[in-house]
Amino acid sequence: MTKQQEIINNQRYIPIHNHGFVGLIDFMGNDRAIVEAAKTSYGKGTKAVSDDRTLIRYLMRHHHDTPTEMADLKFHLKLPIFVMRQLQRHRTSSMSEASLRYSEATDEFYIPENSYLAPQSLTNKQGRSGTLSDSLKSFIKAVMTEYSEKAFEIYNKLISSDMEGGLSRELSRIILPVSTYTECYWKCNLRNFFHFLQLRMDHHAQQEIRDYANAMYELIKPHFPISCEAFEDYMYQSKNLSRMDVLAIRDLLAGNFKNDANYYGMGKREWTEFIDFWRINS
Amino acid sequence: MTKQQEIINNQRYIPIHNHGFVGLIDFMGNDRAIVEAAKTSYGKGTKAVSDDRTLIRYLMRHHHDTPTEMADLKFHLKLPIFVMRQLQRHRTSSMSEASLRYSEATDEFYIPENSYLAPQSLTNKQGRSGTLSDSLKSFIKAVMTEYSEKAFEIYNKLISSDMEGGLSRELSRIILPVSTYTECYWKCNLRNFFHFLQLRMDHHAQQEIRDYANAMYELIKPHFPISCEAFEDYMYQSKNLSRMDVLAIRDLLAGNFKNDANYYGMGKREWTEFIDFWRINS
Amino acid sequence: MTKQQEIINNQRYIPIHNHGFVGLIDFMGNDRAIVEAAKTSYGKGTKAVSDDRTLIRYLMRHHHDTPTEMADLKFHLKLPIFVMRQLQRHRTSSMSEASLRYSEATDEFYIPENSYLAPQSLTNKQGRSGTLSDSLKSFIKAVMTEYSEKAFEIYNKLISSDMEGGLSRELSRIILPVSTYTECYWKCNLRNFFHFLQLRMDHHAQQEIRDYANAMYELIKPHFPISCEAFEDYMYQSKNLSRMDVLAIRDLLAGNFKNDANYYGMGKREWTEFIDFWRINS
Amino acid sequence: MTKQQEIINNQRYIPIHNHGFVGLIDFMGNDRAIVEAAKTSYGKGTKAVSDDRTLIRYLMRHHHDTPTEMADLKFHLKLPIFVMRQLQRHRTSSMSEASLRYSEATDEFYIPENSYLAPQSLTNKQGRSGTLSDSLKSFIKAVMTEYSEKAFEIYNKLISSDMEGGLSRELSRIILPVSTYTECYWKCNLRNFFHFLQLRMDHHAQQEIRDYANAMYELIKPHFPISCEAFEDYMYQSKNLSRMDVLAIRDLLAGNFKNDANYYGMGKREWTEFIDFWRINS
Repeated sequence: MTKQQEIINNQRYIPIHNHGFVGLIDFMGNDRAIVEAAKTSYGKGTKAVSDDRTLIRYLMRHHHDTPTEMADLKFHLKLPIFVMRQLQRHRTSSMSEASLRYSEATDEFYIPENSYLAPQSLTNKQGRSGTLSDSLKSFIKAVMTEYSEKAFEIYNKLISSDMEGGLSRELSRIILPVSTYTECYWKCNLRNFFHFLQLRMDHHAQQEIRDYANAMYELIKPHFPISCEAFEDYMYQSKNLSRMDVLAIRDLLAGNFKNDANYYGMGKREWTEFIDFWRINS
Repeated sequence: MTKQQEIINNQRYIPIHNHGFVGLIDFMGNDRAIVEAAKTSYGKGTKAVSDDRTLIRYLMRHHHDTPTEMADLKFHLKLPIFVMRQLQRHRTSSMSEASLRYSEATDEFYIPENSYLAPQSLTNKQGRSGTLSDSLKSFIKAVMTEYSEKAFEIYNKLISSDMEGGLSRELSRIILPVSTYTECYWKCNLRNFFHFLQLRMDHHAQQEIRDYANAMYELIKPHFPISCEAFEDYMYQSKNLSRMDVLAIRDLLAGNFKNDANYYGMGKREWTEFIDFWRINS
Repeated sequence: MTKQQEIINNQRYIPIHNHGFVGLIDFMGNDRAIVEAAKTSYGKGTKAVSDDRTLIRYLMRHHHDTPTEMADLKFHLKLPIFVMRQLQRHRTSSMSEASLRYSEATDEFYIPENSYLAPQSLTNKQGRSGTLSDSLKSFIKAVMTEYSEKAFEIYNKLISSDMEGGLSRELSRIILPVSTYTECYWKCNLRNFFHFLQLRMDHHAQQEIRDYANAMYELIKPHFPISCEAFEDYMYQSKNLSRMDVLAIRDLLAGNFKNDANYYGMGKREWTEFIDFWRINS
Repeated sequence: MTKQQEIINNQRYIPIHNHGFVGLIDFMGNDRAIVEAAKTSYGKGTKAVSDDRTLIRYLMRHHHDTPTEMADLKFHLKLPIFVMRQLQRHRTSSMSEASLRYSEATDEFYIPENSYLAPQSLTNKQGRSGTLSDSLKSFIKAVMTEYSEKAFEIYNKLISSDMEGGLSRELSRIILPVSTYTECYWKCNLRNFFHFLQLRMDHHAQQEIRDYANAMYELIKPHFPISCEAFEDYMYQSKNLSRMDVLAIRDLLAGNFKNDANYYGMGKREWTEFIDFWRINS
């Protein structure tokens, strides 16, 4: 917990959940550097500082993403293994992670706070929604805590030198739960980071990794204000319309809308989402 | 266990440990296809089938690796999460993994067999070596088994619909140990696969992933016999000499060897490894 | 030209322009294989063959792109160097290209046909539009042809053994124009290939690479009919709406539209494109 | 030429050949940052600054390359298209290149200086070696210069607005030779940069790209002195021994050497290289 206090005092670090944190260790570039890389492609033309915003928004709007790769971000993260596993899916990044083959595990596990404990969502197969009683929440947290402590106790016993020198660390650690905290350095260029954010700040992502993604985003925003504004307008809060969506909206605008999923070739769920998003009285 | 039996009957699948397996689902190309890609670069010249081996060995020897990328391998794997985490470090591959947000975990955990249980290595910080008594081994396996079963029992209770609908799967699974089995499709081109093998068939790699790497290699060997022979000769069983190693060997060959690490600018451990590898009486 | 005739007779090859071609040499997977990879993630559930289309469309609609990486495509291409340079920008692919350091250049250059010769576009800084007179077209083609032939003549003289053995190939080739044809094998997985198509079948792409992209797409369509249909509906013919576009369309649908770019925070060009795309009488 | 003067005055830029240059625009990290990333994996242990060198050399020697990815380098390059095409083969990098679709070409072409003009190598199919007479060199340079100037003259005529508005830039440029200079920003992490250097500082690489690679290396050396020393000792000046090489050297050291390529399973050329490298009297 002392480490977390240090982190709170350090403006580049943000504490997450009970033991985790996100820190922006280093970064390369700024909005101006992206503009300069873009100008290499487009030749002379854009001049004043006031034009940077226009150019960056133009790049983002037309998916000219190469100049955005010229900025780099390096984070220091402490996070549960199951969140790390999601982070690791993003292959266009560099990672140095603590190894439990080399070093010993510490007694830190993620235990969700009350507001995070929710039942399986009935509509979203991969999510949670609804509420549980306070007594059940207390029970769940007690079970998780007890179980984690037990895991660590066994781990400690297995590696203990009293036990004929101790089972090797790389084998003892296999009984640790995926809620165990791990630590890493993670580096990503701004283009791929925006892609990461779009997937992991999305409401379909697991709440735990969303908390990390949001914190990372907060840390970089002051350093890339124009690019981040463009990211929000053209990526994060954008909406991708399918060929069928375009037809249906054109019909809505022309007063020719047919209230019929089949007519537009949409599936049932697709249709419901269309109706909901555009708030159509059907 | 029935799944494993099916697998044993299927020649493209190899069972690993107590619940895992490796299967070669599909592949693209063969030695000939690599040769043809190489000939695009080099123009006409090499003709007969008898020349394929010479060309492939030439490519491998000179690190002309692009043609080897023209072959692709697709595997189906069942493996413990801690092994999956090592596999996932290889970013130049494609992976579809089972998600415990979508589907329920099954009651399968990796329990090392007796011959795998060993103490922490005293020389290799990341490995195991030495022996443990049979009684201790039995104790360890009993503890691991009991603990895994307990984890699954709690997991089942947490997702149980009796508990106000059940805690969401994505939260319930956080108490499962990293020995829990998961499943994936994993695709890699032959060039990156050879790089993977070189790292994961190495004796520094954890024994469990070495078993997977070896099995995968067995499955592809019949389909790329010439490339695999070249891989063994020029990569797997190759030895990289540092600038200092080269100087020392030249001195050995010329009869001018100085038995002095400092003279050659080698570190202590480096020197020991040099002496051992070349079996020098020092 | 004989090579082109061979190609025309071979259904997997499509001739392009005066000397180029595209051939689908090999591929791995089909729609079913993508479905199977996806099912690894989602667990059991989708059963019948009739469900494959629904699942693939769901994946494409929600940007669950990993299973699409499980299919691979290998092409054989002959193309001018300036088109090759555009192809090479797509880094998530494998390429073996003819080397003019190893082999001699051949006397083949891209000369645009009449319908391709057009003036610089006044609105699109990177494109062409409008028409030129037939006499000017004839002049341009004559100049390009004469100049290319001259280049090859000089190249031939430089490498000629009469000239003290001949200047090395790697230096002689530097005077060849970027219209010189080159040849390569190019391999890409289906996910990255769709991304390539979206950028290179777009009307902003140079017409020459669009011709290659279209031909490659024709070659793979019969092998991945469901995925290609989904690609067209959710990627190729999709429309990305910015945050501001969404607000403006919501206002249009609610009858509250303000005919004012500033109100929605759109730039001048952005506004024009919005008005044009949605055919709004402003 | 004024641009080159500016560059000479700027210590971070190095002029190359007649019009090119290399500049180190920005970089992230230093030796210390690599050590810190490595320590995340290995846990506590290495302390003093004096240990950094030992750790970095250990990482390099054992191919633990991930921490080296934590440093990034951003270059500004002006180079001929044929060199750019070689640079572009390195896919694990980011690039923003000038586009001749957007902007007009300038009248700058690479003309090799006298000492670079050499005949085709008789032993190395992809290289040059030997000498040419001064009069032939003068002739070659005159031909190349005349031809380049002619190319630019035609290009200028084609884009000229006098010609019915001018042929579009994207078509006019196709007659420009691959010796035409282009410009780019190029970013790479240190790990991949070392890999790039190993391939492009090699004597098999074309002299022109070697000159660029060497200049880039000079620019980064002061910022990563320990890593660069380790790169030279364990990568650049290292020697990879095949399985057969190891056997033969062991036999040499034990006095059992058989002067017979077949005995060791080496090809003819492989054997010659072995004999030459180890200076064996055969």
